[in-house]
Amino acid sequence: MSKVDKKIVKEKVILGLDPGTNIMGYGVITVRSGQIKLNQFGVINMGKQGEHALKLKKIFDRVLALVDEYKPDEVALEAPFFGKNVQSMLKLGRAQGVAMSAALYREIPITEYAPKKVKQSVTGNGNASKEQVARMLMQVFAIKELPKLFDSTDALAVAVCHHYQNGAIKIKSKSWEGFLKENPGRIL
Amino acid sequence: MSKVDKKIVKEKVILGLDPGTNIMGYGVITVRSGQIKLNQFGVINMGKQGEHALKLKKIFDRVLALVDEYKPDEVALEAPFFGKNVQSMLKLGRAQGVAMSAALYREIPITEYAPKKVKQSVTGNGNASKEQVARMLMQVFAIKELPKLFDSTDALAVAVCHHYQNGAIKIKSKSWEGFLKENPGRIL
Repeated sequence: MSKVDKKIVKEKVILGLDPGTNIMGYGVITVRSGQIKLNQFGVINMGKQGEHALKLKKIFDRVLALVDEYKPDEVALEAPFFGKNVQSMLKLGRAQGVAMSAALYREIPITEYAPKKVKQSVTGNGNASKEQVARMLMQVFAIKELPKLFDSTDALAVAVCHHYQNGAIKIKSKSWEGFLKENPGRIL
Repeated sequence: MSKVDKKIVKEKVILGLDPGTNIMGYGVITVRSGQIKLNQFGVINMGKQGEHALKLKKIFDRVLALVDEYKPDEVALEAPFFGKNVQSMLKLGRAQGVAMSAALYREIPITEYAPKKVKQSVTGNGNASKEQVARMLMQVFAIKELPKLFDSTDALAVAVCHHYQNGAIKIKSKSWEGFLKENPGRIL
């Protein structure tokens, strides 16, 4: 066995998810010795048509497939807390719950980040536009083309944010109310 | 082979679910030749304390266990559409999404019913109290004791409602908006 084989390389794979009912963004990065590498990013399109349950099943199946393919050590979730109305929040909650289920099923820890936190972490500005976030990630990972759907870069951003935060802002609160107090600014 | 063995008995197992973040009710019934039999009903208590993700994992694991134990042909879900505020709806949506994931993972069709519809179907009164629903079910299934938590009887009620409806009110709408129009009265 060579010396290289004996060397222990710390490696962590992070799956970032930005779940929505119609489109879910995902991004997979590998962190090795502090360096981040892009594995894959893209969107899962549930389509605007089709039965609601089928869309949810597609989210579950695709997240499970991503988890089984990339075997992430941790999942980072972009999770807005406040929406336009109760109906949109129920829809969003379902999409989030389904996406989370697939990670929880494989016993992978999930950390949630508010959109503002993700933007702040990646661009230094909590009010940055989705395009600004995308352009910053293009620089970090030498991505040549601006993606058509920012859901993909948003998901990649939450994975990068999780790496920068090193999982420091996990949900530690015993109650939802306490969590809200500790995580202000969760606005869509 | 005797004549009895050759006789085909139509049997359908229905799992009713009333998902919430802290408590989820469930009820399992078997319908055979138009007769309904109670298999099991109860609650899964996630506890008021504890990490949010762990509660969601418990919902998923327990629903999957129920599905694998009773092998339901169909799942009926009590699904309120309007809540007090966006935060409570996001929580409810997550609990619903997680519970639905376990059924969807096993490819079991899900039908959703509004609380009013369930009450109407079981008691004849859409504005019946939870206790009235419970007392009606005690009669139907010869249950001797009024349960402490009506989440269990609510879940049993949605399974019974699904049997009465014979799955007629499935979500056929192509859009959420269309579904809302076709299913008025979805109020907590």
